[in-house]
Amino acid sequence: MRYELFYWPSIQGRGEFIRLALEEAGAPYRDVARERGRGKGIAAMQRLMRGVESARPPFAPPFLRAGRLVIAQTANILQYLGPKLELAPKSETSRLWVHQLQLTVEDLVVDVHDTHHPVASSLYYEDQKREAKRRARFFTEARAPELLGYFEQVLQQNSGGRRYIVGRRLSYVDLSLFQVMAGLRYAFPNMMARLEPTLPGLVALHDRVARRPNILAYLNSTRRLPFNEDGIFRRYPELDRK
Amino acid sequence: MRYELFYWPSIQGRGEFIRLALEEAGAPYRDVARERGRGKGIAAMQRLMRGVESARPPFAPPFLRAGRLVIAQTANILQYLGPKLELAPKSETSRLWVHQLQLTVEDLVVDVHDTHHPVASSLYYEDQKREAKRRARFFTEARAPELLGYFEQVLQQNSGGRRYIVGRRLSYVDLSLFQVMAGLRYAFPNMMARLEPTLPGLVALHDRVARRPNILAYLNSTRRLPFNEDGIFRRYPELDRK
Repeated sequence: MRYELFYWPSIQGRGEFIRLALEEAGAPYRDVARERGRGKGIAAMQRLMRGVESARPPFAPPFLRAGRLVIAQTANILQYLGPKLELAPKSETSRLWVHQLQLTVEDLVVDVHDTHHPVASSLYYEDQKREAKRRARFFTEARAPELLGYFEQVLQQNSGGRRYIVGRRLSYVDLSLFQVMAGLRYAFPNMMARLEPTLPGLVALHDRVARRPNILAYLNSTRRLPFNEDGIFRRYPELDRK
Repeated sequence: MRYELFYWPSIQGRGEFIRLALEEAGAPYRDVARERGRGKGIAAMQRLMRGVESARPPFAPPFLRAGRLVIAQTANILQYLGPKLELAPKSETSRLWVHQLQLTVEDLVVDVHDTHHPVASSLYYEDQKREAKRRARFFTEARAPELLGYFEQVLQQNSGGRRYIVGRRLSYVDLSLFQVMAGLRYAFPNMMARLEPTLPGLVALHDRVARRPNILAYLNSTRRLPFNEDGIFRRYPELDRK
């Protein structure tokens, strides 16, 4: 099975959570919107979204084509891929639990996005900068500490030890938490300098994931797009007070 | 199995999507935070969230206790309950699809919440009213038409007909779409007056769900809390321009 990922070609964004799972597993995949030519690129992605080829179109990227199946919503894609890529626990109870954690990661991602786009995703940042400053202050002072503190607590309480967030094996949530830590360090270095002493488990988890051979190779490849000010994690110094 | 739902006792909020599924199925359940007495009420809910009883605490309500399992995140709870309450399709492919749709409903719910709380959920509406007006304008003019138009398209394209959003049988997503339509009519009557002529399938779906015997009985009971200005769907006339 060669998976086909559809996502905006110039940002990590939500697609990155899928890319990290595929890369860690060494799964063959195409990043279709980043390819050029007939039936490729953004046009191919938008064609699938219009629902002309299928009665079950995605509302938004990222989405994944696996054979005849087209599946959207980041956490849903990961839930689907998890068992196939051996990145999910075996029991149904634990699978619900990793999905629950992934949906909480999604909540955090929405919050991060809304620090720079609190009014409308269709407006430029510059046109909602005043609102962004207020929202970012709430995020850096209340919401991020609360959410990261929750994940730290879950990690510390994991009955399988503190190497991974669930059980004794890597799951897709560990990869997503790596991405969250990397992204927040990029976007909010001042906030993270304050918070990291309270998050020893997450810091160690980030480093552990970054050292995994397939992830390390990916991070050093051109397939890993750099963080930038078009993605979800953006560095706007005015939103990250000292 | 007697389910135990934990959610804020004075609002419909996200808990309502779970209540509707339990009510439609006639499943025995307790709405724990609405009960009074030892081991009940909000205190019981908060105790579970602190993670003293379990190493797998929820981050936020709603959550559901089913025997020893405690499961959180609205869409995850519905995914768990769906097959047990006969409110989900049989095939894995279709289950992924209803979950994908439910996650898109969740996106809409976040957007609705942020029309009145675009800055911080911890601040009063009055303290973010200016930002709320801008966000609500984006919601009513762009985001809501886009999301509702998507669901209408999916309904019109359903290979099983237009009675339900997926296949030929009621699923939990139909109940959630009923709630979305009811909530938006309460919060944004002017917007809905404009949009409803373009949403004939969703309007009919709302009415069809409202007539189901168990739902009708529920809506006429005291178990159904009224919409109010503490929930997700709030009527603030200044956010709903004519």
